[in-house]
Amino acid sequence: MGEKRVIGIDLGGTNIKVAAVDESGKIVVKEERPTEAPRGAAFVLDRIADMARTVAQRAGWSWNDVTGIGAGIPGFLDFEKGMIEESPNLGWKKISVVEELNRRLQVPVVVENDANVAALGEAWIGAGRGHRHILAITIGTGIGGGLIIDGMIYHGANGMGGEIGHIVIDPQGDRCNCGNRGCLETITSATAIVRHAKRRLEAGEESSLQEVAALTARDVFDHARQGDAVACSVVGHMTETLGYALSLAANILNPELIVIGGGVSKAGDILFKPLYDSFSKYALARVCDAVAFRPAELGNDAGVLGAARLSMLASS
Amino acid sequence: MGEKRVIGIDLGGTNIKVAAVDESGKIVVKEERPTEAPRGAAFVLDRIADMARTVAQRAGWSWNDVTGIGAGIPGFLDFEKGMIEESPNLGWKKISVVEELNRRLQVPVVVENDANVAALGEAWIGAGRGHRHILAITIGTGIGGGLIIDGMIYHGANGMGGEIGHIVIDPQGDRCNCGNRGCLETITSATAIVRHAKRRLEAGEESSLQEVAALTARDVFDHARQGDAVACSVVGHMTETLGYALSLAANILNPELIVIGGGVSKAGDILFKPLYDSFSKYALARVCDAVAFRPAELGNDAGVLGAARLSMLASS
Repeated sequence: MGEKRVIGIDLGGTNIKVAAVDESGKIVVKEERPTEAPRGAAFVLDRIADMARTVAQRAGWSWNDVTGIGAGIPGFLDFEKGMIEESPNLGWKKISVVEELNRRLQVPVVVENDANVAALGEAWIGAGRGHRHILAITIGTGIGGGLIIDGMIYHGANGMGGEIGHIVIDPQGDRCNCGNRGCLETITSATAIVRHAKRRLEAGEESSLQEVAALTARDVFDHARQGDAVACSVVGHMTETLGYALSLAANILNPELIVIGGGVSKAGDILFKPLYDSFSKYALARVCDAVAFRPAELGNDAGVLGAARLSMLASS
Repeated sequence: MGEKRVIGIDLGGTNIKVAAVDESGKIVVKEERPTEAPRGAAFVLDRIADMARTVAQRAGWSWNDVTGIGAGIPGFLDFEKGMIEESPNLGWKKISVVEELNRRLQVPVVVENDANVAALGEAWIGAGRGHRHILAITIGTGIGGGLIIDGMIYHGANGMGGEIGHIVIDPQGDRCNCGNRGCLETITSATAIVRHAKRRLEAGEESSLQEVAALTARDVFDHARQGDAVACSVVGHMTETLGYALSLAANILNPELIVIGGGVSKAGDILFKPLYDSFSKYALARVCDAVAFRPAELGNDAGVLGAARLSMLASS
């Protein structure tokens, strides 16, 4: 078999990213368009197919040279059937993505949960290069989790492997989208950081955050760096809780590496230092000795790169 | 290669069990002798070697027919070097078990953590038959944990994979042997059940347990079954906590099966029913859907059988 030329697809609730990726992990061409999920699955699948053909063409690849397509999708998948069981973000249920894309593109298609795909991307050519056992989390609207074991995505029994965002930390806590209360993501996601800060501000606490118009998690970290007490307290609670949750996962998984992704992961020491302090307080000493923490390196490209890698592994 | 005839060794802090095991998982001959760990590592290793030759002889096997030896050892191991880093139960540090047994027995030797070995035994011919992803815990003096992924023992980065006993549940809780406070095993081990019951009795609570001379975890379950309020409360706290802890592990691992071993696992419905109720309250619905709970089946033989299997896998 000649060099692999694959198309990596990162299907999100807001945008679709599609890239032509070569075997070395180089993105030759990338496109991004809005998902417009409310227009229905057929519309979205047509758009993806069109984007795939477009990036291949712009990369100067004949369609016959494309060896495969990988796609990361937000939601619960049936891997054997190549089917989305349910994607709350897209409003999809029981969509045979592999079959639908296959029909449109006549190329082997592999699908995977988006958090797993991002983890695979980081393991391949990002923060996880050279490591076998990796726990990757993404701090965003929720807390995504992907698990790499022996260099491969770990699915578990039915595709839920690595779903650390929904471990319950505080049974009396805020209601989570999953139906439970106090899941990790209700405390440590970017959304939760903003919600917690707003609550403190609404309670009338004095803070430089009062002046920020449309508050983001990044603002909270920025103001904490400048010493604002409310921002420091919100960040403190977030890092203490996330460090604790990662200690639970690490005592069980004994990973070599924990990769933290999402916008918040760019906050640097103000995130990573207290996070590791909390982690090391709760994790077994030998587990601490074995693990490194690293920010994700691939940013918004983790999805398309991981999806491309998925296709390469499937055809190797 | 002909039929495998292996020796499985289960080295415990109190007793050594050694068995001649055939390829079907049948124990042909088994021996048990006290460990007498205070007499030193050389004494214990000599005793193991002697027991291995004895069971082979009693099984009617010529020593040349023995294809390998597997050993389960309580403690932290360096698998690549075949070395015990540290075994608090045995009082051993830096003992090259593989080399030492090899020299005494001239047969290939594989060593493994005892909880992992028990998990492998159950996966092979016990409660876990036919399952790929298994979390096995043993409720005893502590809470041992072993993880089977894709049918193989999962070690993690440095042999700590599956150490669920030391996830911190209550940072203000009782001091654990590991140095932390409120580890799962300080709340849900057999030792902890007895400690909690005794505390309630010492505080003067009325209970049928007051009449029991040398209280065991089994007594607590027996009296709970008869409706004793203190026993019910202790069992309730234990099952609520263990169910919660298993939900954390299961959301991350998405196992097909959770095997519960140790003496307490024979308690039946009074353990398993509230345990599953607690688990399903906290775990994701899809994770619950995929997992079954089962008591371990191999009892005291899990160790020698798992150790035998370990040797078979190593030579296959």
